[in-house]
Amino acid sequence: MPDTLTISLDAMGGDHGPDVVLGGARVVLERKPHLRFEVFGEEDAVMPVLESLPDVNAASTFHNCETSVAMDEKPSQALRRGRKKSGMWKALEAVKEGQADVCVSAGNTGALMAMSKFCLRTQPGITRPSMAAIWPTLVGESIVLDVGANVGADADQLLEFAVAGAAMARALFDLDRPSVGLLNIGVEEVKGQEAVREAGTMLRQANFSNLDYRGFVEGDELGKGGVDVVVTEGFSGNIALKTAEGTAKQIAAYLRAAMERTLFARLGYLLAKQAFNQLREKMDPRRSNGAVMLGLNGVVIKSHGSTDAEGFAAAIEVGHDMAANGLLSKIERDLESFSEIRLNLEPAT
Amino acid sequence: MPDTLTISLDAMGGDHGPDVVLGGARVVLERKPHLRFEVFGEEDAVMPVLESLPDVNAASTFHNCETSVAMDEKPSQALRRGRKKSGMWKALEAVKEGQADVCVSAGNTGALMAMSKFCLRTQPGITRPSMAAIWPTLVGESIVLDVGANVGADADQLLEFAVAGAAMARALFDLDRPSVGLLNIGVEEVKGQEAVREAGTMLRQANFSNLDYRGFVEGDELGKGGVDVVVTEGFSGNIALKTAEGTAKQIAAYLRAAMERTLFARLGYLLAKQAFNQLREKMDPRRSNGAVMLGLNGVVIKSHGSTDAEGFAAAIEVGHDMAANGLLSKIERDLESFSEIRLNLEPAT
Repeated sequence: MPDTLTISLDAMGGDHGPDVVLGGARVVLERKPHLRFEVFGEEDAVMPVLESLPDVNAASTFHNCETSVAMDEKPSQALRRGRKKSGMWKALEAVKEGQADVCVSAGNTGALMAMSKFCLRTQPGITRPSMAAIWPTLVGESIVLDVGANVGADADQLLEFAVAGAAMARALFDLDRPSVGLLNIGVEEVKGQEAVREAGTMLRQANFSNLDYRGFVEGDELGKGGVDVVVTEGFSGNIALKTAEGTAKQIAAYLRAAMERTLFARLGYLLAKQAFNQLREKMDPRRSNGAVMLGLNGVVIKSHGSTDAEGFAAAIEVGHDMAANGLLSKIERDLESFSEIRLNLEPAT
Repeated sequence: MPDTLTISLDAMGGDHGPDVVLGGARVVLERKPHLRFEVFGEEDAVMPVLESLPDVNAASTFHNCETSVAMDEKPSQALRRGRKKSGMWKALEAVKEGQADVCVSAGNTGALMAMSKFCLRTQPGITRPSMAAIWPTLVGESIVLDVGANVGADADQLLEFAVAGAAMARALFDLDRPSVGLLNIGVEEVKGQEAVREAGTMLRQANFSNLDYRGFVEGDELGKGGVDVVVTEGFSGNIALKTAEGTAKQIAAYLRAAMERTLFARLGYLLAKQAFNQLREKMDPRRSNGAVMLGLNGVVIKSHGSTDAEGFAAAIEVGHDMAANGLLSKIERDLESFSEIRLNLEPAT
């Protein structure tokens, strides 16, 4: 009965606060009417919106919080000021204490990462949590991690990311043995990739039953979707994610300009409007909204701060699927099997 | 009289060898009829093509070489096997010895980097050469470096990249004081960005007369073209470049599929065909073909291995512009002024 899950919502997070967060809850309720929400935020801002949405109100328990994390607040400051009393913290705490199955926030990314680590702590066997994005590809969707929770990663950490990402792929895409690639650059023998090469050797030797390691992939493979999970450290992962978003916007702008240039182009656009709408839908960043914080004792979803209700609803649904399909226990079991495997691994060459 | 420059060509490099290399020379000669070529390669493969192109033949001096670097050869192996005798090496040597102003190769990237360093050596003040790509943006073109000559970079090296990239922007875009940004990720206080932050502090303090430092940029800024030069270490730079290429191909595939789906869409496509052609031209990777190896005692251009004659011609023209506009002396002068400035810099915080 996955539809009876409870989602805790940081109602004050994001560029548009309660309007988008609760609007997103309304959208999801249409598809999953048995969901419950624990809503955290400042009463003055949240209650008017909640009362304007009777369905959401009926499915929610509201908790007044005395402060909120600002979108531009430094993580350390947010932690100092908002720990134990901000809506973001309280929403995470609800997961920690078992009142909610998933926490979803569109708030300050750095603060959410810091608070998540502090409040929920990492799962056994995980050194550092990571952030995983759902990446639209030519053949469907892939998972890419880490997209910015950390800068740099050693071989052990890359391997943890691989295990966590594969568990997420199994929970989200319903796969038995997702394919996994390590992001690398094509130039051979460039110094500095030791961690990536070592992680590759370990993944190959470990021969996981739940993860099909396929070797290195380059940046241009991301859009093709040749593997289900692409693993990299957070600096390059974040840059890849943002670069793809920027390129998509750039091409959309070229396309708009081209279609407005001549009368024939405008007529052609009108005739092909339905096709353009399908294209727009494919390129809609809201469809793949919702990065998952992996490696914590709880499911935490980070929505884009600038998304709308549709986009926020997508983030809630990602969280729902993660919790309903037992993401945490999948990661935990795989990491256990890995620590057994690890004892038998030869030293990487 | 920049048109009298001499270009040395590694005729055996690339997926298509002499056909594309000499075909590219033919295209360039139409626009710059006074160019001269020093052509290096294996006689059996090169001469038939050269003889089939009388204009190119008349502008060229051919040098038979006993071996060629394979596209999949490891750099160390290529260096061992092809040093002093491969077409790639000989083409670089022609620049070293002043017989040519620029070397252009579509060959094995790793081998070209290794041979360039070995043959030409780095300029005074440069620790490591870098590879700079020309990046199409919404407002024109930017320069992005390093796109894969190295993995990782400390603050000093990032600063060298900034100086070299700005000199390239001055040579290529005819700017007095190009704007420069450091690629970074948006999340504040993530550990590991020390080198990027330190480079930012140094660039701000140095206050170069030839370089306008604008702070950090994220991956989604690349396509916007907000700065003329974007600086990063080679791992993330290569991944950004390949990710953008992959995303462009992905969207082109979506667009093709959408335009073929219905009769109306096909009719619309026909009407708007001219606009689509303009779009295709904008997205044509051949237009921005030609990465520049910066920091060497000589101008070396790396063309995409899979390009055609038009694309290779673009790479030759990039090389021509670099040499004609005094790239090397610009970099050298800026690095000199930097070493003076460096003495007065406060320790980075």
